[in-house]
Amino acid sequence: MKVSRRSHVPPFAVMEVLAAANARRAAGEDVLNLCAGEPSTGASDVVRERAAELLRTADLGYTEAMGVPALRAEIAGHYRRWYDVEVDPARIAVTTGSSGGFLLTFLAAFDVGDRVALARPGYPAYKNILAALGCEVVELDCGPETRYQPTVSQLQEAYYGGGLDGLVVASPANPTGTMITPSELAAVAEWCAEHEVRLISDEIYHGIAYSDEVSQATAATYTDRGAVVVNSFSKYWAMTGWRLGWLVLPDELVAPVDALAGNVALSPPALAQHAGVAAFSPEGYAAAAANVARYAASRERLLDRLDELGWRPVAPADGAFYLYGNIDWTGLDSVTYCERLLAEANVAITPGTDFDGVRGRDWVRLSFAAAPDVVARATDRIVAWHKTL
Amino acid sequence: MKVSRRSHVPPFAVMEVLAAANARRAAGEDVLNLCAGEPSTGASDVVRERAAELLRTADLGYTEAMGVPALRAEIAGHYRRWYDVEVDPARIAVTTGSSGGFLLTFLAAFDVGDRVALARPGYPAYKNILAALGCEVVELDCGPETRYQPTVSQLQEAYYGGGLDGLVVASPANPTGTMITPSELAAVAEWCAEHEVRLISDEIYHGIAYSDEVSQATAATYTDRGAVVVNSFSKYWAMTGWRLGWLVLPDELVAPVDALAGNVALSPPALAQHAGVAAFSPEGYAAAAANVARYAASRERLLDRLDELGWRPVAPADGAFYLYGNIDWTGLDSVTYCERLLAEANVAITPGTDFDGVRGRDWVRLSFAAAPDVVARATDRIVAWHKTL
Repeated sequence: MKVSRRSHVPPFAVMEVLAAANARRAAGEDVLNLCAGEPSTGASDVVRERAAELLRTADLGYTEAMGVPALRAEIAGHYRRWYDVEVDPARIAVTTGSSGGFLLTFLAAFDVGDRVALARPGYPAYKNILAALGCEVVELDCGPETRYQPTVSQLQEAYYGGGLDGLVVASPANPTGTMITPSELAAVAEWCAEHEVRLISDEIYHGIAYSDEVSQATAATYTDRGAVVVNSFSKYWAMTGWRLGWLVLPDELVAPVDALAGNVALSPPALAQHAGVAAFSPEGYAAAAANVARYAASRERLLDRLDELGWRPVAPADGAFYLYGNIDWTGLDSVTYCERLLAEANVAITPGTDFDGVRGRDWVRLSFAAAPDVVARATDRIVAWHKTL
Repeated sequence: MKVSRRSHVPPFAVMEVLAAANARRAAGEDVLNLCAGEPSTGASDVVRERAAELLRTADLGYTEAMGVPALRAEIAGHYRRWYDVEVDPARIAVTTGSSGGFLLTFLAAFDVGDRVALARPGYPAYKNILAALGCEVVELDCGPETRYQPTVSQLQEAYYGGGLDGLVVASPANPTGTMITPSELAAVAEWCAEHEVRLISDEIYHGIAYSDEVSQATAATYTDRGAVVVNSFSKYWAMTGWRLGWLVLPDELVAPVDALAGNVALSPPALAQHAGVAAFSPEGYAAAAANVARYAASRERLLDRLDELGWRPVAPADGAFYLYGNIDWTGLDSVTYCERLLAEANVAITPGTDFDGVRGRDWVRLSFAAAPDVVARATDRIVAWHKTL
């Protein structure tokens, strides 16, 4: 029987790598997995303990579609604390991970046929969700000269080249880890507002940053001009499997997102929401900060050996926990590079083709969210393996 | 800035009733809430205890997009136990509630512009999700003569009247509680297969049934002919806020759903999945059966007083935990009826307009998932209030 055209989503090359890595591990090999875009620690003790308590005391039924009031209030508090921005909790929607947030935002903001721009390289699910919802994706070719972030002149070109209804920016970005500066974000937000282009800012890696030069500006400053912020408990708070995220919405999208959420999702997971309140406690922040310190240590050891590693150029890993590097000089395309690295040196990383359909054959992504000694051992193995090529 | 046309989802009238009910309760009134389509008990102890253990021991990161293998295997076992049907776990997708399951199924099966039929009255989220995804909804006017279930002759009419790509059936249905017989399901499934119409069977109330006459046939028997089953842990296992459901898929939709799930949802909630395995233990089934016995007791007390209650006709409440009744004789439309019943007698129920845009003004839905004494007291109040009209 018929399968929809929109379900023809391109497969991720990393899934093949992961399957092969799991098979090797099952066969007793000592595989180091640096594919995963997730912290290895899991949620903090304070969140787990709160959850355990709720399992004894709470009914854990459906919640409000926009999330429980206590969590929305805590998220508003987070914006005061971190960014000195006042956000009305009524404009915060709790979502089922940032995935649920993107889905609701795209549905509320865009119709079938609308054109939405995003950076290439970038997180592939953006364009796959947009395509499934009938939107047209406009890829902006972003390189080192703009820290792999879109610019106003690219937007201008896309706008006059065929119209533009939306823009997704991510800072820190996946796979590059690069950030957009406050002044660049301001310029992009202003341009979007003036051209009635909906700005959607993916801020799920906020809090995971290593450079003071590039601070983490939030698009929550621009919601009065139509911008939407997407954020998550998955990365900074290491709560990936809890499926909890949030949106900061402009006024005009509050009622639409509420109505869509009630139909499409009913409510985000109840236990995660109630326990997620504890993420904003001093202990919750402290546990997250300790994770970031660990990523910083892994990153430092990695960058210290960059010459030895031989990937060049690499994107400046300002934030998140990824190193995106060029392996063109090996003469291998990235899928082959990753397959052979796994088969010959037991290190699993992600081919750039998953993030960039044009230049991805020359790039690979390594996640340093793994423990520092795992990252160090993987680096040893890659360096040694390069010598065999 | 622009809001999408597809986000103009009609609001649920019950939300106004609920807001008013909460306000009255906050003001100290003794409000009895029979709006909610959810069990009041919450998950069983065995599931909660398993979850508490996992909070101490598991990392709770992302899982496979299609769900953890252990849960998929348990679900396959459930089909053997309950229905004597063999289902390959590879054809089972764990989803974020049945909501997540409907979204993935609709995306995988239907393109923009496809026409999908469903019964009126019916659960409103079906048509709201379909509309948001650009599908055209074909409402089938279903009445007491067919237990409010669609028939082959209606399908025939829709098919030759403008084409048909899909059909959603629900048994037991919301709001009527009526079921489709095995022979009717077989006839509908065969017609759908012959006409290349994708059958989607909502079986989330399976296990909650009160009549031996109408058994619970599953469309899992027809997946080899293209049918999809949507099910959930929310109702029978009383795990609404855990956001856990599943699909049984025909072969051709397995890869599309897997690919879409990885992009749209990443993975269902990890803790719910791992703990959900315990729902299929003897203790898990026993706790669910005890809940059903409680609904049966509430239902019995309600039906015993049907003449006194004066709703007529009522749909035969064969399953689920709803009584859907006609209140035309009161001279009030259902929204006014519900508003006044709340304001004057402190009982909250749901106007039929949420389920039926044509005849819903004459109908109301009462949920007897509440505790039996709550249902009995609410009945007293409705009967007394009727005398004041």
